[in-house]
Amino acid sequence: MIEIKPYERDVFYYETDKMGIVHHSNYIRWLEEARIAFLERIGLPFEQLEALGLMVPVLHVEFDYRLPFKFGDRFRVEMSISKFNGVKMNFEYKVYDVDTDELRGGGKSEHCFTDTQMNILRLGTQRKELYAQMCEAIGWDPTK
Amino acid sequence: MIEIKPYERDVFYYETDKMGIVHHSNYIRWLEEARIAFLERIGLPFEQLEALGLMVPVLHVEFDYRLPFKFGDRFRVEMSISKFNGVKMNFEYKVYDVDTDELRGGGKSEHCFTDTQMNILRLGTQRKELYAQMCEAIGWDPTK
Amino acid sequence: MIEIKPYERDVFYYETDKMGIVHHSNYIRWLEEARIAFLERIGLPFEQLEALGLMVPVLHVEFDYRLPFKFGDRFRVEMSISKFNGVKMNFEYKVYDVDTDELRGGGKSEHCFTDTQMNILRLGTQRKELYAQMCEAIGWDPTK
Amino acid sequence: MIEIKPYERDVFYYETDKMGIVHHSNYIRWLEEARIAFLERIGLPFEQLEALGLMVPVLHVEFDYRLPFKFGDRFRVEMSISKFNGVKMNFEYKVYDVDTDELRGGGKSEHCFTDTQMNILRLGTQRKELYAQMCEAIGWDPTK
Repeated sequence: MIEIKPYERDVFYYETDKMGIVHHSNYIRWLEEARIAFLERIGLPFEQLEALGLMVPVLHVEFDYRLPFKFGDRFRVEMSISKFNGVKMNFEYKVYDVDTDELRGGGKSEHCFTDTQMNILRLGTQRKELYAQMCEAIGWDPTK
Repeated sequence: MIEIKPYERDVFYYETDKMGIVHHSNYIRWLEEARIAFLERIGLPFEQLEALGLMVPVLHVEFDYRLPFKFGDRFRVEMSISKFNGVKMNFEYKVYDVDTDELRGGGKSEHCFTDTQMNILRLGTQRKELYAQMCEAIGWDPTK
Repeated sequence: MIEIKPYERDVFYYETDKMGIVHHSNYIRWLEEARIAFLERIGLPFEQLEALGLMVPVLHVEFDYRLPFKFGDRFRVEMSISKFNGVKMNFEYKVYDVDTDELRGGGKSEHCFTDTQMNILRLGTQRKELYAQMCEAIGWDPTK
Repeated sequence: MIEIKPYERDVFYYETDKMGIVHHSNYIRWLEEARIAFLERIGLPFEQLEALGLMVPVLHVEFDYRLPFKFGDRFRVEMSISKFNGVKMNFEYKVYDVDTDELRGGGKSEHCFTDTQMNILRLGTQRKELYAQMCEAIGWDPTK
């Protein structure tokens, strides 16, 4: 499997809520930040996908909150692609505290591919070249 | 089961993203809006819970996106409590388009109860009065 | 001047920050919510403007924070158009606590009009019909 | 005047809106990100100020939008303290596109100091030690 530098950054003040911890909705945004950085690092920058008329909407997202992040913390997202078949692409995420290496939470997301009109695409048959490029970037063998 | 008026409102412009649809992270916020309105409507306003030193952090959240919402749409959240035992409280949500009554997505959330120091509480033994009040509000029989 | 029902709603939990008050950035979003409701109420719904290929980006925004809003509060935005000449449209806002009628803050925003390619439009010459409609909705005499 | 490394980062996907550009409210959040990084870099980390029971709420904020940022852009905030007297602290900001060095917008913010109960503090008389430390960090001569 490909080794990708994990995404990390400091918690923003405006991400906290009145409980004094990061509001749970923001983790869903962190997953997106990490996902976009991940795709860029494996050679599939989102801007390029969108320039090809490809959109990658979210079908499902979930997150398990173990320990809260606070302002002053720095988080790191380790992630991998758990499924890719040209119709769906799924990711798994683990979110760590950078200072302690403690696992603070984890999640999953499922995605499909559409054109700019939101019509679902089967990359294997409708965008063969891009599909081959993505398989290679991901380290996937499409013939299996 | 108790009949509660569903939560609804218009999509905000700032909730959209460059795909022209509501960004997926905002649905997680909609669930919170609906949850807080729901608790208020069954007689458990969040302000009152917090005034009692009770916090209700999120342990897990998930959402299935079927059809996107756009600016100009109005959404309605129908929800119910799927579990309550004084240690955990789980909710289920369905999100509809108000104009068409179309089901656009659905999700779940799991919560626990803590004091203001984030120590987990067992309401049944540690906050008996509040637990009885919550059971009654929810229409739950704690003796079962 | 036209009398328009002010925009109001409850503060959302996720709008608070670790100071326990509404994060200051959210007031800028409240102004947008109020502005869109205002335009709809005077007969210029944003969806319709966008359907005509018109975008109304923000050129300037400012806000004075007097007293913070907290979760549990309900806010009301009273606003008016302070300038409209077919090239720019400016608004002024006052934000009140609904329960106490206390003025909690106020702001301004400046906008221009563009086509979907972000080219600036002069409505008076380039979109005469829309300009006339807007002048009428706003109660503006374009001949002055 | 002190030379501080400007704050910069990539635009996040979720910061865009249906116009395809960064929603204007997010610039206000960028200013906060930059401000907190700035204070940390001059030796006044926000966590430390808050640990001392000091809060720094926003009294006023404004922003001029010249050219929009899009997803794929990277922004840089150059900023300075325009006023500091122990009662108020004002900042000025310029936001540049990192790739082109183009000035895309600029803004201002005004702040006061309060204790955790939101009572306004005069640092010069009520928190003399901290005031001296801040003056030194900022490069301010309090005797002038």
